[in-house]
Amino acid sequence: MTPSQNIKTFLEAGPEYLPSVSVDCVIFGFHERQLKVLLLEFKHTKAFALPGGFVFKEESADEAATRILWERTGVKDIYLEQFHTFGEQNRGNWDVHKATMSSHGFELETNHWLLQRFISIGYYALVDFSKVIPTPDIFSDIGGWHDIHQIPTLILDHNRIVEKALSTLRLMLDYKLVGFNLLSETFTMNELQSLYETILDKKLLRANFQRKMLSMEILERVEKKFSGKAHKPPYIYRIKKTT
Amino acid sequence: MTPSQNIKTFLEAGPEYLPSVSVDCVIFGFHERQLKVLLLEFKHTKAFALPGGFVFKEESADEAATRILWERTGVKDIYLEQFHTFGEQNRGNWDVHKATMSSHGFELETNHWLLQRFISIGYYALVDFSKVIPTPDIFSDIGGWHDIHQIPTLILDHNRIVEKALSTLRLMLDYKLVGFNLLSETFTMNELQSLYETILDKKLLRANFQRKMLSMEILERVEKKFSGKAHKPPYIYRIKKTT
Repeated sequence: MTPSQNIKTFLEAGPEYLPSVSVDCVIFGFHERQLKVLLLEFKHTKAFALPGGFVFKEESADEAATRILWERTGVKDIYLEQFHTFGEQNRGNWDVHKATMSSHGFELETNHWLLQRFISIGYYALVDFSKVIPTPDIFSDIGGWHDIHQIPTLILDHNRIVEKALSTLRLMLDYKLVGFNLLSETFTMNELQSLYETILDKKLLRANFQRKMLSMEILERVEKKFSGKAHKPPYIYRIKKTT
Repeated sequence: MTPSQNIKTFLEAGPEYLPSVSVDCVIFGFHERQLKVLLLEFKHTKAFALPGGFVFKEESADEAATRILWERTGVKDIYLEQFHTFGEQNRGNWDVHKATMSSHGFELETNHWLLQRFISIGYYALVDFSKVIPTPDIFSDIGGWHDIHQIPTLILDHNRIVEKALSTLRLMLDYKLVGFNLLSETFTMNELQSLYETILDKKLLRANFQRKMLSMEILERVEKKFSGKAHKPPYIYRIKKTT
């Protein structure tokens, strides 16, 4: 929803969308041993939801995901990756959409396009939440970061979508380390282990972790600078440049 | 397509399907160092395609995938897993659908539901192709196994769907070893390595492979039977039972 649009425009855009298809975005935020997820809180109804929306007939699902995230949260320049499509026949209760629109003065008929069955394509990303400040759209009071251990009840099947995104993130963490572009240019093994421990939500054995990371051959050790301290400074690593 | 249905019934079922959503199945078959994929060849037009179809309003996408695979190839009792949804705006040329229907005596108008934009949810599986004998449906002359190195040109973006399924299979092979239920009850390390080499399409170093497999802690060694031979028989493994 760009600022120039309003709810009436949104509701009238129904025929421009691909029927039956929606997109939901799970944006994970990491910073200093905390893992959070970006949620919207609807005005008036106070329901929580993932940033989601619909696919225009004239755009790809990937393009829709990028646009929707920007329209609903103001967040852009994030690489979103598809992780799962939610195709259950009954994905939950649509009453909240009816109530939300009603609270804005629009009464939806039962056969309104917004109340039909949608399969939803889930996209996810992992960012540094200290660098991403969301701005809420016209439907939302606030778009905020919520700790992964304290996710409120979300609309429809959005809690399940978050869980599936989290399990995918954990499963794919090794492969996504480079793709998500989350680490600073250089980092210590401790910092890397901290990222893994936070996302996996468990302590890892230092020696095993280090051996595994080095065996993946994606890290290179940066030449150590002279240190005046008596205590041995930690090695500094960076992700290998792929050529 | 159950045998009792015909093409007219299929074409008239349009309004019973969820608009804009289709399903395509990539069934990989492995046997004796060969990796194949299950394809349909259309009658008359001789075009090759993945077994695909549409999602009824009254079923989930997962249920649709299972039904479609059975209707189009006669193959059932296979665990299908979703791997990617193809949401590009233009997924290729629909003329082949027009030509196929025309060859059966049905001329489709440009606005026919079968010629609209569909996003397609991709499902895949890995089976032993020596145990799975496909039977073609009313649209197809034959449903057959094609070597992964000799895939013909397929309709729409189906070649891309096969490539994406293959890269997912390779990426997830470690995790899918148990899930795909492909190995016999017991096997040697050589047999396991042969499965990996065929799917990854490359030779692996025996020592590294063995170390990696054992480190995953999913295998257990079966007690060795007495062997009269002088030559040391290989160890026999099985997948650990999860309790």
